[in-house]
Amino acid sequence: MNDTLKLIQSHRSIRSYTDQAVSAAMLDEIIRAAWRGPTSMNAQEISLVVVRDAAKRARIAEIAGGQAWIAQAPVFITLVIDFHKTCLGVGKAGQTQIIQESMEGFGVAAVDAGITLANLMTAARSQGLGIVPIGGIRRNPQAMIDLLELPPLTFPLVGLCLGHIAVDAPQKPRMDIRTFCHFERYDDSAYAAAIDAYDETIMAYWQQLGRSDGITWSQNLGNSLKQVYFPEVKPVAAKQGLLNDK
Amino acid sequence: MNDTLKLIQSHRSIRSYTDQAVSAAMLDEIIRAAWRGPTSMNAQEISLVVVRDAAKRARIAEIAGGQAWIAQAPVFITLVIDFHKTCLGVGKAGQTQIIQESMEGFGVAAVDAGITLANLMTAARSQGLGIVPIGGIRRNPQAMIDLLELPPLTFPLVGLCLGHIAVDAPQKPRMDIRTFCHFERYDDSAYAAAIDAYDETIMAYWQQLGRSDGITWSQNLGNSLKQVYFPEVKPVAAKQGLLNDK
Repeated sequence: MNDTLKLIQSHRSIRSYTDQAVSAAMLDEIIRAAWRGPTSMNAQEISLVVVRDAAKRARIAEIAGGQAWIAQAPVFITLVIDFHKTCLGVGKAGQTQIIQESMEGFGVAAVDAGITLANLMTAARSQGLGIVPIGGIRRNPQAMIDLLELPPLTFPLVGLCLGHIAVDAPQKPRMDIRTFCHFERYDDSAYAAAIDAYDETIMAYWQQLGRSDGITWSQNLGNSLKQVYFPEVKPVAAKQGLLNDK
Repeated sequence: MNDTLKLIQSHRSIRSYTDQAVSAAMLDEIIRAAWRGPTSMNAQEISLVVVRDAAKRARIAEIAGGQAWIAQAPVFITLVIDFHKTCLGVGKAGQTQIIQESMEGFGVAAVDAGITLANLMTAARSQGLGIVPIGGIRRNPQAMIDLLELPPLTFPLVGLCLGHIAVDAPQKPRMDIRTFCHFERYDDSAYAAAIDAYDETIMAYWQQLGRSDGITWSQNLGNSLKQVYFPEVKPVAAKQGLLNDK
């Protein structure tokens, strides 16, 4: 197996960082890797805001609901849906941009943000750095917009901590690969048994880590997905001009 | 620079494939790389459907608006938002799943699909294969749902061709990196000049390829983003139970 496969297959999230800075050269290679990723129709509608300032990182940690590793890791990158940038091109062509008013537009930009995020993660990890993706910025997207001075037609979708690893973490087990990958047609006949087995696997994993507060995958999703856990996403996105009624 | 950085920074889309099959061992490593990627709250709400059947690939090529490379490349992978899988866990926990009715839920699943897609692409390219991501399946999502037998609470979001490269492609230039990466705060002061320069760069790129039908980035976005280019996304997603009114 080649080094890149080994690297991706060994993915894990790190929540403990040293205070060593990430060098400008390392960061530049990471950003260039993400910059080269594809975007739908080559729209290049994703922008990054790299934050190294400690006070700003402390504020983001707070916005995200008190995630200490955001204040600790020396670099935090926010991935921004940027239909402001594309709008300048559309306007130059004498047209009026509509895409940001659609579910299609939001979905495509989110896919491209995910591609960008994965490339940032792999590029960082290839240089020995640790990473953890952060959805918690959507807890209060307006605060992120204010902090990063984001204009209309943009939205802070997801973030990433990166830095040198203080304490490494084990890899979290995944559910049976037959629940992830289907051949020729979708077939959920393995799901129920796989979920039962995975709930046990996750409990064993928590026990191994000495985490007595661990709950099963099913209980965790029951708690999370019975609600819209970041209800500010829709109203703030709408205020930014990213509607979803088309 | 390490091999992984070189690989990601040399990303390009391939639209010409040989008829050599992708070996089961190669495909397995690619799928395992994607399987290990992170998902928000470890929800694992992305599923893949791998299609190798030639008649099915020909049908997908048609659904996507006549993209010959889908019929040509030996493997086509559809990335599916799978809130059916999570719903089984939520139900097991005695709760009712709501997340699929929100813009937040759709956005998060799209980000996780993007991460999965990038990991598939990097893992495939690390083994010398070519890839091209395909958004065109959203042209007719209902046809994809029927073809792949997708149940309610799922949605076919994006696809990927992969196979052995027949004709390699040059790397498409990107806009000035200052339009992609901001530091500490968003700053669009470089945008207007960068767009003008990039419109020229893209025209020179088309000329170099002998493509007399090439248009600028601005013209391309003007044509594409003045409309909702896949208007079936919202109604079909809603029919599947993926609403966005929360």
